[in-house]
Amino acid sequence: MAYKTDIQIAREANKLKIQEIGAKLGIPEDDLLPYGHDKAKVSQSFINGVQDRDNGKLILVTAINPTPAGEGKTTTTVGLGDGLNRIGKKAAICIREASLGPNFGMKGGAAGGGHAQIVPMEDMNLHFTGDFHAITSAHALLSAMIDNHIYWGNELDIDQRRIVWRRVVDMNDRALRQVNVSLGGVSNGFPREDGFDITVASEVMAILCLSNDLSDLQKRLGDMIVAYRRDRTPVFARDLKADGAMTVLLKDAMQPNLVQTLENNPAFVHGGPFANIAHGCNSVIATKTALKLADYVVTEAGFGADLGAEKFMNIKCRKAGLAPAVVVCVATVRAMKMNGGVAKADLGTENVEAVRQGCPNLGRHIENLKSFGVPVVVAINHFLTDTDAEVQAIKDFVASMGAEAILSRHWELGSEGSEALATRVAEIADADTANFAPIYPDDMPLADKIQTICQKIYRADAATMDDKILKQLRDWEEQGYGDLPVCMAKTQYSFSTDPTQRGAPTGHRVPVREVRLSAGAGFVVAVCGEIMTMPGLPRHPSAETIKLNADGQIEGLF
Amino acid sequence: MAYKTDIQIAREANKLKIQEIGAKLGIPEDDLLPYGHDKAKVSQSFINGVQDRDNGKLILVTAINPTPAGEGKTTTTVGLGDGLNRIGKKAAICIREASLGPNFGMKGGAAGGGHAQIVPMEDMNLHFTGDFHAITSAHALLSAMIDNHIYWGNELDIDQRRIVWRRVVDMNDRALRQVNVSLGGVSNGFPREDGFDITVASEVMAILCLSNDLSDLQKRLGDMIVAYRRDRTPVFARDLKADGAMTVLLKDAMQPNLVQTLENNPAFVHGGPFANIAHGCNSVIATKTALKLADYVVTEAGFGADLGAEKFMNIKCRKAGLAPAVVVCVATVRAMKMNGGVAKADLGTENVEAVRQGCPNLGRHIENLKSFGVPVVVAINHFLTDTDAEVQAIKDFVASMGAEAILSRHWELGSEGSEALATRVAEIADADTANFAPIYPDDMPLADKIQTICQKIYRADAATMDDKILKQLRDWEEQGYGDLPVCMAKTQYSFSTDPTQRGAPTGHRVPVREVRLSAGAGFVVAVCGEIMTMPGLPRHPSAETIKLNADGQIEGLF
Repeated sequence: MAYKTDIQIAREANKLKIQEIGAKLGIPEDDLLPYGHDKAKVSQSFINGVQDRDNGKLILVTAINPTPAGEGKTTTTVGLGDGLNRIGKKAAICIREASLGPNFGMKGGAAGGGHAQIVPMEDMNLHFTGDFHAITSAHALLSAMIDNHIYWGNELDIDQRRIVWRRVVDMNDRALRQVNVSLGGVSNGFPREDGFDITVASEVMAILCLSNDLSDLQKRLGDMIVAYRRDRTPVFARDLKADGAMTVLLKDAMQPNLVQTLENNPAFVHGGPFANIAHGCNSVIATKTALKLADYVVTEAGFGADLGAEKFMNIKCRKAGLAPAVVVCVATVRAMKMNGGVAKADLGTENVEAVRQGCPNLGRHIENLKSFGVPVVVAINHFLTDTDAEVQAIKDFVASMGAEAILSRHWELGSEGSEALATRVAEIADADTANFAPIYPDDMPLADKIQTICQKIYRADAATMDDKILKQLRDWEEQGYGDLPVCMAKTQYSFSTDPTQRGAPTGHRVPVREVRLSAGAGFVVAVCGEIMTMPGLPRHPSAETIKLNADGQIEGLF
Repeated sequence: MAYKTDIQIAREANKLKIQEIGAKLGIPEDDLLPYGHDKAKVSQSFINGVQDRDNGKLILVTAINPTPAGEGKTTTTVGLGDGLNRIGKKAAICIREASLGPNFGMKGGAAGGGHAQIVPMEDMNLHFTGDFHAITSAHALLSAMIDNHIYWGNELDIDQRRIVWRRVVDMNDRALRQVNVSLGGVSNGFPREDGFDITVASEVMAILCLSNDLSDLQKRLGDMIVAYRRDRTPVFARDLKADGAMTVLLKDAMQPNLVQTLENNPAFVHGGPFANIAHGCNSVIATKTALKLADYVVTEAGFGADLGAEKFMNIKCRKAGLAPAVVVCVATVRAMKMNGGVAKADLGTENVEAVRQGCPNLGRHIENLKSFGVPVVVAINHFLTDTDAEVQAIKDFVASMGAEAILSRHWELGSEGSEALATRVAEIADADTANFAPIYPDDMPLADKIQTICQKIYRADAATMDDKILKQLRDWEEQGYGDLPVCMAKTQYSFSTDPTQRGAPTGHRVPVREVRLSAGAGFVVAVCGEIMTMPGLPRHPSAETIKLNADGQIEGLF
């Protein structure tokens, strides 16, 4: 039997007009701002009007540490959403938007895969509804205003050596990582060192995704620290009077985008902060809006549960007042085998023992997730090569952890394949057994928050921080930032900082190399490894083969 | 009587849904790709389907040299379009899109003014339908691919000192005019000098506006010269295999945008190339589409007639096979007075003699426009302070030139005020007296083309070009670029290169400082003065006061 590619399946989708998708959630046509026939933004006035409604149940989809075998977290998110709708539940999906630039380096991805996808796939990998362009513009405006302020006399006394605001562009362009600007003489300003990050790394992106509404957005934009003076006091975006105009540029970008699954179920795709130097979840406003409109909202978090779910719980849920009813942790037979030591080339061969060997990685994630007070279900995302014995090995292991694993075949069969998973997840959500709480309190010292995550989640002996870092954290506490949560920037491939250490390592230490304050987004970033905020293009970027074919379809993007 | 501001009038507009505007032109709902409820793009399949239809009459609105008094060229374009619809003609308007960045420096403008405006004004001054963001992205992709090519071994043998492709951003950011890139060591590439222009100065913008369709677009993108080798042979965007992916990024941006006037008449707003280093007209695809859908299409060209209309005729019409049926040259009593030597502060006082003194500027434009073989009508855009005697002075002068001047009060009264102008313009267009031809043939040597424009249009004694420039032009002729038209980059304020020389100067020379080849757009730029391709922000940019008010309306942008 020949299987179709993701793009073939996506192109054969019988999409409904976006107004019909909106109608499923009770959104009137006038409150949908359409972008073409299959995308729309939900109006702020409509969102304002539903605030008194009860919330639906929030379901987080997370996963084991990613392996080259592929886990299918988004695929499972979509499959579960479709499955819930199939069993008669009113369910919506919330995921992140894709960044444009990287698609021209490596091939872009679908949102989901097989028969569990969100469409229109082409648009979602290109300009979509322009949100990221708006973020790039708002960011660029502030950049220009900083140098312009200095040019006209520097009333705020900005120390030009201590400008911490870098520029951004939504393109993989390594030549811009480190630049000198304002060259060429008097009329171009004061030369200084600068650099560009990719747009998803902008603090503006993190802020857009954590803001409750436009006034919250403006406040947070104003709170951003762009530079320091010689006396080390911070200069805020507000001091440059940039916050109002940035908010105007982001007005439409703040509105959640509505699209649909292959099965015509509603999906919000909104925001896309980095999962390392930021928190890696879709926007708060999309999640909160979905919770007002649907009885079940399925969302996901970036990377594995040690990074993505931890930040979802400790940053997004804490700050937005959200609480998941149940967490679904995605695992696959193949990934368990890789954790059990099997090479990628050998994954097609049955190896029950290797599956068992790899399960401790999953087990630790289950324990961690439970520590937030939420019930956990494991979704075994089915691959065609999986054997019954291998699947049973995972089920047995998960049962031994006091949880339940359910095989789900949404990739192959769509919602028909995820019915069992959806039924069980809905039962658990309806049972209201969750008692969610972040794993550290707001008023814990920043260094202790880092230690808590490293010890309780990564199971490290300790985080190591030198005196300079400890002093920096204390300084921020004195400046009133002590209540902020911590955003860990660590490899996603291991519980440790060594990406090759699969399974469930112990006895390691987590060296914190650097800490950064995102005062507008509202977190302190602890950098525990190399963090690339501006990717480069490969030797033969996919851009070389991307083109329109004779039918006007895009080739080479997927 | 207190008059309302442009923004007040625009906000009170009774906009129709964009589908109703499309219906006026016979565009089915499915062929309109909506962006919100009041903007839409016209589908390529619909455009393909109307190619066999007859064309409507093309009416160009141009003006005298701009003065600080304001001429109201766009206002007259809109007023004339509304007037034509009022007298029962099926008319559409075509104008350019506004650039986002400059609105955060000085206050942004309406499209038109008073009761002759195009809406939605806020969107048109911000992201609109994302066209300029798409151009910025496509440009940025090529930029990244150039440095990436060098990074991975430079197979094409690009001379890093001779990269002529600069980067772009849609923001006024003087700090980026001249930069050094690829600093910071091996992994960031080979350091070199670079700089950023504003997006409207991108050759990609000029190409989008001159392309007939997506395959023409891709060919032209491939034709762009990005760098030279040590042996001075050019490296094309096609050599980097960037043209296909750039076309994909520009796929939607190529489709014309449909909006409406305050009187609910259709207006295409599409493309916005610089009027100095590029040709300064809206897109060919918008104009051609409008001509298939309406009986009369009113369009405008940037700056005064010496630059804008000349390029419209010699570049856009020549290359796209268009021919205007009539040209409307906008003049005002106030601008005539300024040309006659009156200071701006004294414009409110009647001064018939000064009007007469200033008229030669208008007279020369009339002569020039007639030299293209098209009938000319002068529209006197009425200001409330104009006296009858002043208006009559212009009418008498224009009559002495063998043309006709008509007072038009569209700013104050909408189409009621432009009925007379519309009636006369339609009569002339219907009489089919035009016998359009560009003023130089394709096969004239490039240097002679420059001389022709300088002598016939600017009435200079000569253009002066040194040997280096003459050799460069001959080299391009040998390389096969001799058939290209010339795009003049000169001050818009005078027929001469001295912006303070109002009226109708003679005896001047036009020094050509530099020539540039836009091989993809298809013209040779002759630079005759300082050309700013990256503006800066003023001491107090308007961004400082732009914000959302309590009603969610944008303040400070206008």
